[in-house]
Amino acid sequence: MSTTSDNAVRAYIADHRDGFLADLAEWLRIPSVSADPGCAAEVRRSAEWLAGKLAETGFPVTEVWETEGLPAVFAEWPAGDPSAPTVLVYGHHDVQPAAREDGWHTDPFEPVTVDGRLYARGAADDKGQVFFHTLGVRAHLAATGRTAPAVNLKLLIEGEEESGSPHFPALIQRHADRLACDAVIVSDTGMWAEDTPTVCTGMRGLTDCQIDLFGPDQDIHSGSFGGAVPNPATEAARLAAALHDADRRVAIPGFYDGVIELTERERELFAELPFEEERWLRTAHSHATLGETGATTLERIWARPTAEVNGIGGGYQGPGGKTIVPSSAQLKLSFRLVAGQDAAAVQQAVRTWVADRLPAGIRHEITFWGATRPCLTPLDHPALQSVVRAMGRAFDTTIRFTREGGSGPAADLQDVLGVPVLFLGISVPSDGWHAPNEKVELDLLMKGVETAAYLWGDLADAWRPS
Amino acid sequence: MSTTSDNAVRAYIADHRDGFLADLAEWLRIPSVSADPGCAAEVRRSAEWLAGKLAETGFPVTEVWETEGLPAVFAEWPAGDPSAPTVLVYGHHDVQPAAREDGWHTDPFEPVTVDGRLYARGAADDKGQVFFHTLGVRAHLAATGRTAPAVNLKLLIEGEEESGSPHFPALIQRHADRLACDAVIVSDTGMWAEDTPTVCTGMRGLTDCQIDLFGPDQDIHSGSFGGAVPNPATEAARLAAALHDADRRVAIPGFYDGVIELTERERELFAELPFEEERWLRTAHSHATLGETGATTLERIWARPTAEVNGIGGGYQGPGGKTIVPSSAQLKLSFRLVAGQDAAAVQQAVRTWVADRLPAGIRHEITFWGATRPCLTPLDHPALQSVVRAMGRAFDTTIRFTREGGSGPAADLQDVLGVPVLFLGISVPSDGWHAPNEKVELDLLMKGVETAAYLWGDLADAWRPS
Repeated sequence: MSTTSDNAVRAYIADHRDGFLADLAEWLRIPSVSADPGCAAEVRRSAEWLAGKLAETGFPVTEVWETEGLPAVFAEWPAGDPSAPTVLVYGHHDVQPAAREDGWHTDPFEPVTVDGRLYARGAADDKGQVFFHTLGVRAHLAATGRTAPAVNLKLLIEGEEESGSPHFPALIQRHADRLACDAVIVSDTGMWAEDTPTVCTGMRGLTDCQIDLFGPDQDIHSGSFGGAVPNPATEAARLAAALHDADRRVAIPGFYDGVIELTERERELFAELPFEEERWLRTAHSHATLGETGATTLERIWARPTAEVNGIGGGYQGPGGKTIVPSSAQLKLSFRLVAGQDAAAVQQAVRTWVADRLPAGIRHEITFWGATRPCLTPLDHPALQSVVRAMGRAFDTTIRFTREGGSGPAADLQDVLGVPVLFLGISVPSDGWHAPNEKVELDLLMKGVETAAYLWGDLADAWRPS
Repeated sequence: MSTTSDNAVRAYIADHRDGFLADLAEWLRIPSVSADPGCAAEVRRSAEWLAGKLAETGFPVTEVWETEGLPAVFAEWPAGDPSAPTVLVYGHHDVQPAAREDGWHTDPFEPVTVDGRLYARGAADDKGQVFFHTLGVRAHLAATGRTAPAVNLKLLIEGEEESGSPHFPALIQRHADRLACDAVIVSDTGMWAEDTPTVCTGMRGLTDCQIDLFGPDQDIHSGSFGGAVPNPATEAARLAAALHDADRRVAIPGFYDGVIELTERERELFAELPFEEERWLRTAHSHATLGETGATTLERIWARPTAEVNGIGGGYQGPGGKTIVPSSAQLKLSFRLVAGQDAAAVQQAVRTWVADRLPAGIRHEITFWGATRPCLTPLDHPALQSVVRAMGRAFDTTIRFTREGGSGPAADLQDVLGVPVLFLGISVPSDGWHAPNEKVELDLLMKGVETAAYLWGDLADAWRPS
């Protein structure tokens, strides 16, 4: 049984913090935007950069794995003990689109540190949270005097998470033998708040799509023709407006089929968290709550399926007015899914619903970008208890439980590898995922390093999976 | 009583056609886009160019008239006969926005002639139809041997028509004495078709606006926050969708207040026109009709008030998906008005309706770009009969009656100057007003020249207003 000195871990981290942050900044400068086909070369560069850095960290195996789309990174560091548990860390190296004109105060791909916060696209989602494992495993080795980690450590860092992971299921099926493990640790989620560290026990699923509507073959004069022909911008709006009923429930027939409702105990656990609406609204940069009647805000974002308009566009959007009937319009919709829902069935329900609602003279196309399954982790799993203990040592306080409203390919790993999925994330809601001025709190990032440094020893001591 | 030889008119026009078209092309090269603040200097250059050309044509008085916005052009050529009628020709020298990437086959501000069609922004709306008066009056003089027109001829060519003429009422009030006349001839409308020349007897009014909706202070993650806060793109869509009820009638309370319904005789006159839906749909570049239940297509575009979404935008509109709740969204709406409606009342109805429909957490701003009143001309007015005769000579066929679904500041002229408003236009629906690849049929443009050449003599002979 190995022991880990908390002081030795902390000293090692303090000594190596500057180099760690300099490396992270170098990675954040690579605009690995998977949604933008023009950034494909940058996503590849990001993968190669990471593989190189993992080799430098000490991983004896580092590989860039090709997909039908953008590449992932795999790394492996055996424990040297055949009875040690095998853990697969999941994260992603691609990022959301970002442009200065979206409201960034600084270049999103030129990291800057202000008041202990590191600002850059990907700082929290997800490069920062992937990268804390590099210093974490080094601190684990340094503090224990080991030359290999106490667990068989594998990393799989994908490159298409922000695009709905279209090729991820195929990738993990193809490499299922290399990825074999006893548990997956997902480092792509957040905590309740700076002062309330939490472990996430589930994520919502996601499927999103673009609906293109075509009316007149070109923009036409709204005086000469308006009021007598269908207008695709109007029809796009009618679709988007019909997504929700008066109770703000999703109005697409069949959408709620199979939804597993919350138990009374789960509602109580949610209600025990120190939720303050005014504070939450500030984190959401919003001025009021609005959602499904009969559900609390936490239930709405963690345990209820939703439909959201991510983008709408059609006709003239420049300065002043232009009196046209536009020739086309576009909707970008995303649907968050909860346990029990089937993404393919939801997609079919959306297709049927759209086709049924459009008038003659409006042609349409729907493209689904992908689907990510929802998932849940058992609260009593021994590996989850290890995560809670490691976080407890790093944060020196009680660790509580949350769920995550966002989505990740965790459920695919669970399905293909047949193992439980755990979550270890140190991001907080104010980090601005997918938004301008995304940041990570440096203190929390270093707590992530510390948690990772404790976790492998605890896991190896506490859990001998059969 | 003067007489005009049709042959002499035609010979003069044939001799001067090339120079006339070269001059028009020079004018069309000036991108006088009034809606774009960046084009203000070009609108001024357009006014100055026109004033110079009118002086060259022979108008003894040519002036550029300033407004609070963009300049208009005034010109005057007295008949030298105190009992002659005074006619004011109205048109505009500003144009709609146009960019190659909107679908133009050629540069919108570099005129090209293909198969007898002149393509350029403003070719039909309205520079071509203003400009035919220059050669028209010269042909009138040449064919009659006069040195001044048979009527007191005034021109007022404004520079903000495509922006809703915000300063036009003030302009004509300020210059009401200089503009005093017995009738206004508006050359800013079209005909039924190439083979069915018509005179327009009325125009719809217009008021249009932009509605900006603000939700979260920045784009936020749709997984972390979606389903629990209001989404301005959804709310913009809900507004746009609520514009019309299930019968596609405008659903804004009070919108139809005061509307003068069509008489049975007017519905018959509309029904007598050779309307073929398939052909009309081709002109509309559309694939089906859709509009207010119980009204025919011609009634919908000429005599019914409408609400149209000219543009909608919010959230992510780039390639791929982006799972956000957007921070803002925008709607551009236009409302066509018919006789009996009050634009100010409609604007107030829209403001109230918008404010009543938005949930807490969504802030909004509404900007109305302006208002243009609807108008109608009496069918039995002697000056209208002159227009019909002059067109009959030029086109050598029966002239029928239409209305115009579009809008112009004609009603302001009618109100301020206290005179009837007549319409003389040779554009056809396929000319693509406000659309990519706007054009004018050169044969019809020359018929416009010819009509103008006959009109002044006929008017002076037939009408001695008291």
